[in-house]
Amino acid sequence: VERISSETVYEGQIASVRRETFRYDDGSEEVREVVGHPGAVAIVAHDERFVYMVRQPREPVNEPDLLELPAGKLDKEGESHLDCAKRELAEEIAMGAAEWRELRRFYVSPGLLEEEITLYEATGLAPAEGDFEPDADEQIELVAWPLDDLAGAIARCRDAKSLVGLFELQALLRA
Amino acid sequence: VERISSETVYEGQIASVRRETFRYDDGSEEVREVVGHPGAVAIVAHDERFVYMVRQPREPVNEPDLLELPAGKLDKEGESHLDCAKRELAEEIAMGAAEWRELRRFYVSPGLLEEEITLYEATGLAPAEGDFEPDADEQIELVAWPLDDLAGAIARCRDAKSLVGLFELQALLRA
Repeated sequence: VERISSETVYEGQIASVRRETFRYDDGSEEVREVVGHPGAVAIVAHDERFVYMVRQPREPVNEPDLLELPAGKLDKEGESHLDCAKRELAEEIAMGAAEWRELRRFYVSPGLLEEEITLYEATGLAPAEGDFEPDADEQIELVAWPLDDLAGAIARCRDAKSLVGLFELQALLRA
Repeated sequence: VERISSETVYEGQIASVRRETFRYDDGSEEVREVVGHPGAVAIVAHDERFVYMVRQPREPVNEPDLLELPAGKLDKEGESHLDCAKRELAEEIAMGAAEWRELRRFYVSPGLLEEEITLYEATGLAPAEGDFEPDADEQIELVAWPLDDLAGAIARCRDAKSLVGLFELQALLRA
């Protein structure tokens, strides 16, 4: 399959839409709409007792307090995935971590949306140091969820990236 | 939080974008872009030996053969979630199922995209009967993945909804 044209048809503050034409090996062509996205990171931050999550309002899906892992978009020019994860952990839950490990990468809506999530495990947690701006306006509440009720977090969670992270953590703790 | 205005700024064949203004309890207001979506279903279809998955090209993320669960959008007027799941299972892998169970609902990108996935388990599988149109143009390949290597499917899968479904199946098989 080959992309033979791409046209930006909407360019907003966050969302952009392209119309792209693809030619398949059999000669057929198809036009697809693609929602642009810079990618994002999500973080499984835990110690021996808790996994540190957040609750926040998610207006697009009408949820006043969705339970999620700390996460954020790769929206700073030239910032690496890992640096983005470190920044988001500081901004969202005011923590830093001594050890970082990439767990996996995945797409969230591959038929429509470019977004790819890079999922990290962060351990050796401590209060964040250095320059960071807390997300004051983002109305984020920290939730320390006990690891001995990880199944309860999985039962309650309604966010795909966070579910993947919690299931990964469950596998890590079993291993 | 209260939605005080909503304006459609882009309306395409699949993608639509709205600009919505929200007022928070503290009186502050924020404008958000929301990508519209009718919702979707995904299906964990399995028997004693295999989970039935698909490989397909996913142009928006430049993947020529992404491994996923059978899934599809709620794009038919008045169709229930379960009827959509039954139709997608027939169209994508030409199977019907005697038993259906809803496993969970979740969002895939709740900061931007309305999409909510309803995940089903389908068992008692048999060749599909009745009226259905195979997705001839969608270039979908059936993959029967052995349950005794479910961990291999989880290791290879790079699609969030499918990962959630495979982890759920792993939990079901352990129980």
